[in-house]
Amino acid sequence: MRSSTRGEVDPFIVMDVMEAARAEEARGRSVIHMEVGQPGTPAPEAARRALTRALGADPLGYTVALGLPALRARIARLYGEWYDVDLDPGRVVVTAGSSAGFLLAFTALFDAGERVAIGDPGYPSYRNILKSLGLVPVRIETSAQNRYQPVPADLDRDDLAGVLIASPANPTGTMLDKAALGALVGAAAERGIAFVSDEIYHGIQYGARAVSALELSDEVYVINSFSKYFSMTGWRIGWMVVPEAHVRKIERLAQNMFICAPHASQIAALAAMDAGGELEANLATYRANRALMLAELPGAGFDRIAPPDGAFYIYADVSGRGEDSRALCARILREAGVAVTPGLDFDPGRGAGTLRFSYARSTADIAEGLRRLRAWSGR
Amino acid sequence: MRSSTRGEVDPFIVMDVMEAARAEEARGRSVIHMEVGQPGTPAPEAARRALTRALGADPLGYTVALGLPALRARIARLYGEWYDVDLDPGRVVVTAGSSAGFLLAFTALFDAGERVAIGDPGYPSYRNILKSLGLVPVRIETSAQNRYQPVPADLDRDDLAGVLIASPANPTGTMLDKAALGALVGAAAERGIAFVSDEIYHGIQYGARAVSALELSDEVYVINSFSKYFSMTGWRIGWMVVPEAHVRKIERLAQNMFICAPHASQIAALAAMDAGGELEANLATYRANRALMLAELPGAGFDRIAPPDGAFYIYADVSGRGEDSRALCARILREAGVAVTPGLDFDPGRGAGTLRFSYARSTADIAEGLRRLRAWSGR
Repeated sequence: MRSSTRGEVDPFIVMDVMEAARAEEARGRSVIHMEVGQPGTPAPEAARRALTRALGADPLGYTVALGLPALRARIARLYGEWYDVDLDPGRVVVTAGSSAGFLLAFTALFDAGERVAIGDPGYPSYRNILKSLGLVPVRIETSAQNRYQPVPADLDRDDLAGVLIASPANPTGTMLDKAALGALVGAAAERGIAFVSDEIYHGIQYGARAVSALELSDEVYVINSFSKYFSMTGWRIGWMVVPEAHVRKIERLAQNMFICAPHASQIAALAAMDAGGELEANLATYRANRALMLAELPGAGFDRIAPPDGAFYIYADVSGRGEDSRALCARILREAGVAVTPGLDFDPGRGAGTLRFSYARSTADIAEGLRRLRAWSGR
Repeated sequence: MRSSTRGEVDPFIVMDVMEAARAEEARGRSVIHMEVGQPGTPAPEAARRALTRALGADPLGYTVALGLPALRARIARLYGEWYDVDLDPGRVVVTAGSSAGFLLAFTALFDAGERVAIGDPGYPSYRNILKSLGLVPVRIETSAQNRYQPVPADLDRDDLAGVLIASPANPTGTMLDKAALGALVGAAAERGIAFVSDEIYHGIQYGARAVSALELSDEVYVINSFSKYFSMTGWRIGWMVVPEAHVRKIERLAQNMFICAPHASQIAALAAMDAGGELEANLATYRANRALMLAELPGAGFDRIAPPDGAFYIYADVSGRGEDSRALCARILREAGVAVTPGLDFDPGRGAGTLRFSYARSTADIAEGLRRLRAWSGR
């Protein structure tokens, strides 16, 4: 049967790691999971309680395409609480996770064949979603001295229709301060190209708070999600904030492409937003895990790392070892019983020399993983 | 801010009807809803119970991209129960509703600029999703004598990359028998174009059972959903069956474009599949509603209708009235207190002369709506 070329996207190399880890476990081996980029915790209890109540009281049919009005209003309020930004709820679009946000944003902003800049290393789905929509990802090689983030000079070219920035970033965990983010927003505006800000790890930060692109301009697309800080990955629920002039267009696209975000997830998400205590407890776990990682990883031989300002990742340069990261990950899994992700998913160019460690699981798991890594490195 | 052309899709005219109905209700007026294409019933009780149990026991993180193995296996078994087809669960892809199914199928099958045939009248999102993906919908004007469905001769042209067929269809409710569907599958195969079968209304049928394209060929894409027969619209959960050679490609696209379908919805859907009694009771309601519609609509002046073999719609030709369907719908809402959908959403060419009545709500509602329509027509 016929098949498209744009649908031929890269496989995730981490899937091979996960399959190898599963096989080790099937053989009775214990594996510590530092490869997975999601919390081990469920949605907040208040979220689950709210949904249980709704299950008995509401048929949970389609919602309007832009989302439940109460949820849109509560999300708008978050921008006051987190960033001191006064946001019109009419600009908030509830989406089926940040995945749907990217599909909607790229479709509304770009026509087939247009070129969009993304930083390397970065979340692999950026380039794969762009490709699947007939767009051309333009990979910008970032540098350690720029915190592995693009800089305005990278936009100094004529072939771009847009740029996507993530802060905190996956896989590095690095953040941009207000000046650095503002310079990028300004450079995009000067060139008349679209600015898309992926803010999915906001709330998970350890020093300065993350800056939203909405603090700098209304003429940006902001994409966020309940997956990370709100611990709701599998619920597929997130949101976008778009310029006022784009709301009707996004609404029509969302009606056709998605109809609506999952109704049950919208109800759970609304309640999750007021589960502050539980969410801050999750954050305290990440904070403790991060401190352990920073204290112990160097002793295991991983001492060249990006500044881990936020998210729950450590990105380590292992290029000095002269061993391809895929082979190194396989060896760490086999010899140490710890699953980690090779950098190739995030940086097809240089990722043979990098690894990503996730510390999203329990502190006991992280401590055990670090103990194994140290023992392994000492052999 | 910049904006794409492909994102400029048509608005849904039915939204104007819904807004007008809401305004009437806000003025204290009672409105009977025959415009909405979704069941009034919730997900089956067994589905809600299964989810309530899972909420206390499972963190409900991401599932694998193709869906929970138990759900894929149960869906494969359905093909044995409903169609006597022996289906490999490995070919089943769990999706975030049929909407995600269309996005995945069109992306995997077609490159930007390619042309895909759809029948007019038809579900408006077909043409809008195609456009949003940079594809060109080729609208085939169907005829009453062909049950408002395309025929093989319509594919006798050189510019098509694929064709999409729906049986039972929205808005007409007409079905294709095995010979008619087989002729279309065969014509597509001869021409080397992709065949996509939308089977979302399967299970909701009143005489002969609906025929699946999988009874005729393995080289087709079948798209289905838990929204209609399983009464789970807002859960955004559905499935596809794809040729074996396409599974890996769809898996990679789904990983990137969606990560996974909502985990909670997957758990609920699995339990819904064994809620036969409740689902058959819903079907009995539709059957009673349909009988009322067929008995009473002609007396209200709506006597030129498509054969309503399945789904929960009646598509009526009102072109003889000489009044635009949008104006007629507004007048029926205002004068009779019944909301119905103008055909223009489904058939931009001829829909000014057609209406769609939905009978998915309770029998008491349908009876009251018909009483109002008869009284209105007799004035």
